[in-house]
Amino acid sequence: MKQKRIADYGVQIGRMPRGKRNKITDVPGVRVGHCTVDHDTFRTGVTVIEPGPDNPFAHKKVAAVHVLNGYGKTLGLVQVEELGTLETPIALTGTLNVGLVHDALVQTTLERCHAEGMFPTSINPVVGECHDGRLSDLARRPVRLEHVRRAFEAACEDFEEGAVGAGRGMICHGLKGGVGSASRLISVGDETFTLGVLALTNHGSLADLRIDGEAVGKSLLARLQPKEDDDKGSVIVLVATDLPVTDRQLRRILRRAPVGLARCGSIIGHGSGDIMLGFSTAADIAHEGGEPVRTQRVLREDLLEHAFRAVAECCEESVLNSLICARETVGWKGDRVRALADLWPFPGQESDTAQ
Amino acid sequence: MKQKRIADYGVQIGRMPRGKRNKITDVPGVRVGHCTVDHDTFRTGVTVIEPGPDNPFAHKKVAAVHVLNGYGKTLGLVQVEELGTLETPIALTGTLNVGLVHDALVQTTLERCHAEGMFPTSINPVVGECHDGRLSDLARRPVRLEHVRRAFEAACEDFEEGAVGAGRGMICHGLKGGVGSASRLISVGDETFTLGVLALTNHGSLADLRIDGEAVGKSLLARLQPKEDDDKGSVIVLVATDLPVTDRQLRRILRRAPVGLARCGSIIGHGSGDIMLGFSTAADIAHEGGEPVRTQRVLREDLLEHAFRAVAECCEESVLNSLICARETVGWKGDRVRALADLWPFPGQESDTAQ
Amino acid sequence: MKQKRIADYGVQIGRMPRGKRNKITDVPGVRVGHCTVDHDTFRTGVTVIEPGPDNPFAHKKVAAVHVLNGYGKTLGLVQVEELGTLETPIALTGTLNVGLVHDALVQTTLERCHAEGMFPTSINPVVGECHDGRLSDLARRPVRLEHVRRAFEAACEDFEEGAVGAGRGMICHGLKGGVGSASRLISVGDETFTLGVLALTNHGSLADLRIDGEAVGKSLLARLQPKEDDDKGSVIVLVATDLPVTDRQLRRILRRAPVGLARCGSIIGHGSGDIMLGFSTAADIAHEGGEPVRTQRVLREDLLEHAFRAVAECCEESVLNSLICARETVGWKGDRVRALADLWPFPGQESDTAQ
Amino acid sequence: MKQKRIADYGVQIGRMPRGKRNKITDVPGVRVGHCTVDHDTFRTGVTVIEPGPDNPFAHKKVAAVHVLNGYGKTLGLVQVEELGTLETPIALTGTLNVGLVHDALVQTTLERCHAEGMFPTSINPVVGECHDGRLSDLARRPVRLEHVRRAFEAACEDFEEGAVGAGRGMICHGLKGGVGSASRLISVGDETFTLGVLALTNHGSLADLRIDGEAVGKSLLARLQPKEDDDKGSVIVLVATDLPVTDRQLRRILRRAPVGLARCGSIIGHGSGDIMLGFSTAADIAHEGGEPVRTQRVLREDLLEHAFRAVAECCEESVLNSLICARETVGWKGDRVRALADLWPFPGQESDTAQ
Repeated sequence: MKQKRIADYGVQIGRMPRGKRNKITDVPGVRVGHCTVDHDTFRTGVTVIEPGPDNPFAHKKVAAVHVLNGYGKTLGLVQVEELGTLETPIALTGTLNVGLVHDALVQTTLERCHAEGMFPTSINPVVGECHDGRLSDLARRPVRLEHVRRAFEAACEDFEEGAVGAGRGMICHGLKGGVGSASRLISVGDETFTLGVLALTNHGSLADLRIDGEAVGKSLLARLQPKEDDDKGSVIVLVATDLPVTDRQLRRILRRAPVGLARCGSIIGHGSGDIMLGFSTAADIAHEGGEPVRTQRVLREDLLEHAFRAVAECCEESVLNSLICARETVGWKGDRVRALADLWPFPGQESDTAQ
Repeated sequence: MKQKRIADYGVQIGRMPRGKRNKITDVPGVRVGHCTVDHDTFRTGVTVIEPGPDNPFAHKKVAAVHVLNGYGKTLGLVQVEELGTLETPIALTGTLNVGLVHDALVQTTLERCHAEGMFPTSINPVVGECHDGRLSDLARRPVRLEHVRRAFEAACEDFEEGAVGAGRGMICHGLKGGVGSASRLISVGDETFTLGVLALTNHGSLADLRIDGEAVGKSLLARLQPKEDDDKGSVIVLVATDLPVTDRQLRRILRRAPVGLARCGSIIGHGSGDIMLGFSTAADIAHEGGEPVRTQRVLREDLLEHAFRAVAECCEESVLNSLICARETVGWKGDRVRALADLWPFPGQESDTAQ
Repeated sequence: MKQKRIADYGVQIGRMPRGKRNKITDVPGVRVGHCTVDHDTFRTGVTVIEPGPDNPFAHKKVAAVHVLNGYGKTLGLVQVEELGTLETPIALTGTLNVGLVHDALVQTTLERCHAEGMFPTSINPVVGECHDGRLSDLARRPVRLEHVRRAFEAACEDFEEGAVGAGRGMICHGLKGGVGSASRLISVGDETFTLGVLALTNHGSLADLRIDGEAVGKSLLARLQPKEDDDKGSVIVLVATDLPVTDRQLRRILRRAPVGLARCGSIIGHGSGDIMLGFSTAADIAHEGGEPVRTQRVLREDLLEHAFRAVAECCEESVLNSLICARETVGWKGDRVRALADLWPFPGQESDTAQ
Repeated sequence: MKQKRIADYGVQIGRMPRGKRNKITDVPGVRVGHCTVDHDTFRTGVTVIEPGPDNPFAHKKVAAVHVLNGYGKTLGLVQVEELGTLETPIALTGTLNVGLVHDALVQTTLERCHAEGMFPTSINPVVGECHDGRLSDLARRPVRLEHVRRAFEAACEDFEEGAVGAGRGMICHGLKGGVGSASRLISVGDETFTLGVLALTNHGSLADLRIDGEAVGKSLLARLQPKEDDDKGSVIVLVATDLPVTDRQLRRILRRAPVGLARCGSIIGHGSGDIMLGFSTAADIAHEGGEPVRTQRVLREDLLEHAFRAVAECCEESVLNSLICARETVGWKGDRVRALADLWPFPGQESDTAQ
């Protein structure tokens, strides 16, 4: 998967070292799969995130949630907050499709468990969403079980970014958005851990867009003169790490992800369901049984500082990667949404591109 | 609908005056509809609660949530917490069915809106659930759009309690549970308001059961000698009122509902997703547009005390009504779950029944 | 310390085994000290809870908070919720005294740290309170550093209950309240753990009082005919345990403490700041430095069920112990508040006392 | 009060119109008073914010809290969150001084109430803090009742910014910080409202500092070469508005304040207690009595968008004003902390200063 990403344009976000692919899949075991649904009136899809190599129902991960703006329809957060664990892959899709994708995760989880001799009757799928109704015929809920299956089949480490999967119909800062990712390495003692972000970006106004601090949105606004430029839509930020953190510590990390959104220019608008969801692969928690008391590794609290910086950098870079990797798209009603890559270079970024 | 309820057995819960039907539908405009799915391996169903006479998407209600134990799969709470409003009817069903029922609420809300000339592409259905897998073949998710439609068609003020609708497969305190309801009247100044509860009961152990303080569970345990008696399963407590409260005040009311659960003997067990969800019909909030500043009536804070007592009494009586109205049921694997009514009278309640 | 407690009257709360003293100090290392301030217009005091044998600033405990009703002035909760740790002893006192007691905890913690060669400049004392203004001249804030020092000097395992220390001026269910405690033993695998509660009781109405389910309040109300009988005042419930739980698990335990309040008749009234605060002594977390990753023992989630039952039982019994151990008190304005022990036996408890 | 502020250096933050003074006191009725304690080993003080012209205990304001990082000692938040009201002025001071300042607010509120014929025995002061221990001898808690009184006497609309009052000993982004403020005007229908921020800044690292997006911190770091440059310390952000918002809406506004922190370069570090506290002056809520149901004006939800932008802009500008107005300070142990104004101009800001 060779896409030109924001760093390839000379934009260096932050100061921490990146992982090998600079994607969420740098966290060992994490894989991402897309199924794009792009036909007729549909510019939508589904993206799944596998938190580890094994069935997550049998190998639960420590997990946490931070709801910055709850004006959204994400499903499954209640149990994650109560138990501090994730027990299914995470799926992302368009707003009104969440019920059907939830049911698809129930079905695929049942099948996976049955194949392993487990017969659960209580499963908590997590489904995040953003509203892709401007580009896609959202009300018809085209994403079904078959697409979720295909997304799982496509899951890999070197996944595509931009206008693919759940990102197919997204609009971010007035430009074509979608899926973006980034990662950072964290050294603690003599160990090196990874923290990665995958963002589904559908938020922000063009006027507010900043690239590494540069207020490029103003000049783009003058150039493109869109009919409207509201800070609508939402963003879902998924955070994965192999740091040995508790759910409380993970929630502290999640609370810093919006730093990255703010630096790209978001004011966390009213209409934007801004949800942060994270998991740590460090612990492997059985569904049932096992020792009455297990031992868990826990990071020293002050060392979270590194993860705070990492998540801020990753989130900022993920937003930019979602923009720069997306391609121009025409919606079901004829709306044309421009791609950042097609507009490059522009004032404030010209010198960088020369690098 | 003439069922013999707990008050008919001489059990008087609390000291506040009851509404006309002593049900949640005493709150003007509220209606409840069941569709029971009881064939083959299924002992399940769906129950819908209409918060008012009009389309709730166009006439949103002030709403709030209190998650006492989030080990559950209730959908739609995030937006209710953020915006403090409810915009669809509430549906209750069995655990793994929530995705399909969510999608059914999307569909029925779209249809209702289209008929009124509204074309929303963002809708937040609320779906509560309890686990009915011991009596019903939960993994097959039999509750579909057609059943949700039928539940809406059946919606009325004088609805049935016990083992019907979403309550068909529930087990509460080791006995047949299901749907129960109660209401109380609250006088404030020269106005009289109503607060009502509908509980979907699937929680508690037989040994812990208390009826108006009397520890009847111990003798019932000795008499029935069940193989197991865990405090498993969940309870969903819906609270409706026409009190003019803000979402914050409503949340304060919801936090007192568990008083009623505790008095019936629950210890709010680990496996029990205990969710409280409430709405007030006093304000009618438009979906879009309208005056930039509206006026809202707000109850004086200290007068909430009456609502606190009312919700505690209603919740306790609702649990008891769910038990006493339910009928004995044999599950899909042959489990026989006894009905409280069939066991009456028993030590501690004999004298009461004589009244 | 030989006081006649509720169990000595034949009232057996719950079914779990009790610790040696049936007090919060059954949790190894926990000690409680009172300083009663009872002269002139004052019927007040301070109670301190030492979470362990060592300086808690250097040996922090896992801790959590559950605010059921935040209409109160408890100080120090914000940091406990963020970091999941307790770093000072907990102090309890009358409402308007919390600032001075907070400063006293800063002073005593500084002294203790200085003696150990630590020089902290950031300390988070936790100070809980209930309103004792009906019996004591609260506005003058008589509790000072010297009283806090005396409470620490008095700290022991076999502490007094009833109208002592912070409990001196409390009124609970219309009777003299104060400090009550209880404990339960929990077997997990081949280990036995202890969970204990200390409650400062200042809540509830006489009419609502129940003893082990029996509605004794009604007859007491008829007998005593108080001028007013509101559910005013607050209750602070402290929970200690040596169970190896995370802060999230501990918060789940705390959420079940109100079961005990409800069973004694509380409706969690508006004016009642009902705060639950807990700590686990299982982990010992250094203030600074140490290994970058420590290992922590974590209880299997479903085994929390035992702790849920224990905390409900302990909380109920603690309220009753606070009542039965308190002695009749006349307040600074002449109010006479009766003691439960002086009223015993009464209808519903007569047969029990015969045991 | 004529201080040169960031706008005077040509830095224009955001796009919304400013209030008359561009300070929190542009919200009608709000006043701010400082008392600086600067002698011997002390570089500290107290700052008070009066939420309105009248005694706030008798005229409570709608209020809300957002704890972004709870590693702090702010007092009084529990009741604000429960009741959604503020009933005293807010005081800010150094960390270990909060208990004594809390008691001072109790005393001054009692006196103010007594003068008006009210005799409260339950008062909830709100005291925020940041850690000024590097510049001041924090452990001795020098701020007393007399200083709080003087701060109240000094309260005015045209208050000083920078290293004064509670800001005397603060360090922000490695430079001298303190108190900063800003305001924005919001037009809704035919009314104009004001939103203002006062920040007590003690957070951030020098390397991360950005001024309107420009990464000036890197060059300043190279120039100043400080021994350490951690993101330590805290920030308190107070938000005042006359917008007619509910406490829930106000909390939504508060959640956007960190956008301003992030844009100045903060990553919301571990050691930083980042607390947002806001109040609206639109409603005036009596302490007791009054009509059982009052009417309250409520802003249409989507119009909050303007307030979201306003609070982000105000918070960013407040941080910069706190820096640019502060003067170089030498601490009690000889630490010299530089002032931003003394370093101006520098790369990235040179052209601006020419304006």
